[in-house]
This record gives sequence, structure tokens and C-alpha cells, in this order.
Amino acid sequence: MRKIHVIGIGAGDPDQLTLQAVRALRSTDVFFILEKGEVKDDLTRLRRDMLDAHIPAGASYRVVEARDPERDRKAGGAAYSPAVGDWRTARADIYERLIAEELGEDESGAFLVWGDPALYDSTIGILEEVRDRGAVEFEYDVVPGISSVSALVARHRTGLNRVARPVQITTGRRLAEGFPEGVDDVVVMLDAHQTFRQYADEDIDIYWGAYIGTPDEILASGPIGEAAPRIERLRAEARERKGWIMDTYLLRRNPGE
Amino acid sequence: MRKIHVIGIGAGDPDQLTLQAVRALRSTDVFFILEKGEVKDDLTRLRRDMLDAHIPAGASYRVVEARDPERDRKAGGAAYSPAVGDWRTARADIYERLIAEELGEDESGAFLVWGDPALYDSTIGILEEVRDRGAVEFEYDVVPGISSVSALVARHRTGLNRVARPVQITTGRRLAEGFPEGVDDVVVMLDAHQTFRQYADEDIDIYWGAYIGTPDEILASGPIGEAAPRIERLRAEARERKGWIMDTYLLRRNPGE
Repeated sequence: MRKIHVIGIGAGDPDQLTLQAVRALRSTDVFFILEKGEVKDDLTRLRRDMLDAHIPAGASYRVVEARDPERDRKAGGAAYSPAVGDWRTARADIYERLIAEELGEDESGAFLVWGDPALYDSTIGILEEVRDRGAVEFEYDVVPGISSVSALVARHRTGLNRVARPVQITTGRRLAEGFPEGVDDVVVMLDAHQTFRQYADEDIDIYWGAYIGTPDEILASGPIGEAAPRIERLRAEARERKGWIMDTYLLRRNPGE
Repeated sequence: MRKIHVIGIGAGDPDQLTLQAVRALRSTDVFFILEKGEVKDDLTRLRRDMLDAHIPAGASYRVVEARDPERDRKAGGAAYSPAVGDWRTARADIYERLIAEELGEDESGAFLVWGDPALYDSTIGILEEVRDRGAVEFEYDVVPGISSVSALVARHRTGLNRVARPVQITTGRRLAEGFPEGVDDVVVMLDAHQTFRQYADEDIDIYWGAYIGTPDEILASGPIGEAAPRIERLRAEARERKGWIMDTYLLRRNPGE
């Protein structure tokens, strides 16, 4: 039976791999790397560096690269979910073909996922879809990873939640619709539009980070009114310099009377 | 200057330590272990096993154990926060003394935290309080860990959030007050009362786990109406057998029309 590992490889710091992840890397025959249409050479190189660092010299493995289907990023509002749906189906086609054609019956393959495969990643969902189709059989397991969320707050030396209180993890798109109800601590991922600016007048502290755990890491925090313009500038400069950005932030609202 | 590492050691599986955590363990002179009044010998042993496994033979380190102050667990409702406050102050007294008396000026100490120090753990808050008091100086860093939340969903091979949607992490006490607004995916920690039973009539799937990552691990999932009585039975049996239980679960509500 073919085996697949879905391996969380942490937010960017190669030391944030778990021992379980290293073991899984070492037991893998074929690594599947899906390349984004965008230029993210840095990310592909980081992954290759991890393989070089953790797989003993002389051990053999194959790397199979495939082109990720283009996602319709311009679709907004109501069109978002269907666009994601089409994209998942297109990806499932690719995964199915990769597993059927590139992985021998007794081999194990791996998908390397940034952060934790449980947070805003589609790999598990796509593998389930491929299994449901029934055209190719395989087993799979999931190796949890340090998410960018955990890495962010560790670098800021703060917690995600305050004592006995909840925390919500959401997207920039959701935050644009309003501050979530019933929580004062909100982590925002996938925010291409710096939605935090919308809350600059409120009594909120922000803990922001980009390229967390990598040599390019940038951190900033403070009361949002003061920090927001600073983060905007840092973000623009970094994006200009590197050509892409990956950032995450925690908003911590001070509850009123 | 004294140095302190706050090290997330994962949810129970020693393989879920990160390489960064292993490095931090190896650079530590003094480990501080706070014992609970309750009988949790298993947990103390698990931690000692981790030190034995990862610190090279011949390397020297000290383990300093202290008694955790008793927490007023009977205080409910409005009394909860003050009781926690007193307990934190009492703990800060102990941490301050440990750092001042047990750690040499040029040594480094470590607090080992189950899961991720960012989630429902007081260590960072207490160290900040000790620093604010100003009686003892030290630097500290935080090593993120695999939380029981990440470990839970990895074992169930599911994500925390659904595509483009939020997830909330909360407590059993909060869940008892009602299903959180604005989210359909809710992770519940610190629930001594199996509050999920309150939602057994709703269209919700539950993903539950206890002692995750340890040889005693128990997993159960399914539509809540069917799974809740099963989980109740498993939980009661396990608690009876081991004398304590640590469990976590994800509730995934199917949004209506």
C-alpha cells in the first residue's frame, strides 16, 4: 500500500521541525513539491535546504515538482468559495496523478506543508477528495507542525489567549467584515490588505510578524494607532525588497468597562 | 545575566519536541519542575524521560522541584478570575525565589511547558510579573511547541478551520455559556464537565482525544448525538484507570441553510 505523509515543517525556522517530522522526512521516497505560479523561489529553496540538512548523505530520494493550478485571486466576495472549490478539484487531479504515476506501490511520499497542516492549508482536504474518488489507494498520516501563529507569539513572548478567555483565528477577509463577536484576542492570517488599519482608532494592541523564523524576520508591536503606520511601512519595504511577503498578526483588544 | 527558556515540549509524544526545543534542553543548567498537588506522577515521569532521552550522557544539569500553590478550584462564576489572580501571585513568589536562589548569575534555567506555552499556560505571564517586580534580573525566550490542539486534529486527520473560515479556541466554562457566536469550528480545552453533552441535539461533529501522543491515547469522533455517550464512557473509564485525564476536542457545526 502506498503511504503519504503530510508533514508540517514549521513557519520557516528549520529548527522548528519536530523530531517526528525529521523521522518522516527520512522515511520518504518521493517528495512532492507544488510550485506556485508566483515567484517564491525562496520558499522552494528553504524546503530543499531542509531536505539537505536532515536526510543523511547517501540516502536516496526523489523530488517531483508540479505546477500548482492558477487560483482565481481576483474573485472576491461571494465568488470566493466557488473559485476555491474549482481550484481544489484541479489540485486533486494533480495529486491523484502524482500519487498514481510517481509513487511505487510500496513507496512512501510526502507533502511538505509550511506551518501546521491544520491551519489554512488544503492538503488534507485534497487527499481526502482523491481517496473518495477511489482511483488510487493510499494510506496517509499527518505530522503536526509549529504554525506561524505559535511562532509569532513565541517571538513576541506573549500568549494567544488571556486567562480563561477565548482566542479566534480568522482571515483578513473576515476581519474586514467586522471585529469578531465574543472575543478580544484575534489572530489574522492571509491578510493581503492590512485590514488591521480599519481598527487603528480602537484600544487594541497589535503583535505583527513577517517571514517569522527566517533570517528576514521582522517583528513589530504596540498600540495599534501608533504601530499601524509603522507596520504598513515595514511591510511595503519588505515586499518591495523580496517580491513577496508572508505575515500574521494578533489583535488584542482591551475590554472596556 | 541569568537566562530562562520557556520550552513547549508538545502534547505528550516525545517525538513532537522540535529541534529548537532539544537544543534549548541541552543548553539548560537548571530545570524547574512545579509539582501539582494532584497526583500527576505520570507527567513528571514523562518530563524526566524527555531529559534522559535528549541530554547526552555525561552532561550535567540540576532539577529543582517546587510545590505548586494550591488553586481554589471550587471558586466558580465571578470568583474565577480573582482566584486565578491570587494563584498567579503565589506562583510568581515561587518563580522569583527559584530564579534568585537556584540559578547562578551566568546559568540558564528552563520551565518545561506541556503543549505550546501560548495556549492556556501561565508561565509567560508569571515571568513577566517577576520581571516587573524588579527584584531579580533575567532574560528569557519562548520556544513554541506542538499544542494538544494541533496534535488532536493531526491524529484525526482534519483541519482546525474549514476553507476561508474562522476557528475559535475556548474553555469548557465558556462553552457552557453558549456556542460561540460567528464561528462553527470550536476547540475546547480545560473542560472538566464534558460540556459537549449540552450540544448533543445539534448538527455537530465532534473530534475528541485524551492523553494525545502518549501510549494511553484515546480518540473518538462522529456526529455528536451518537459520539457523546461513547466519549462519556471512554472518559470515565480512563479517568478511573489512570486517576487523571487530559482531553481536548473540536466541535464542527454544520451550518444550516
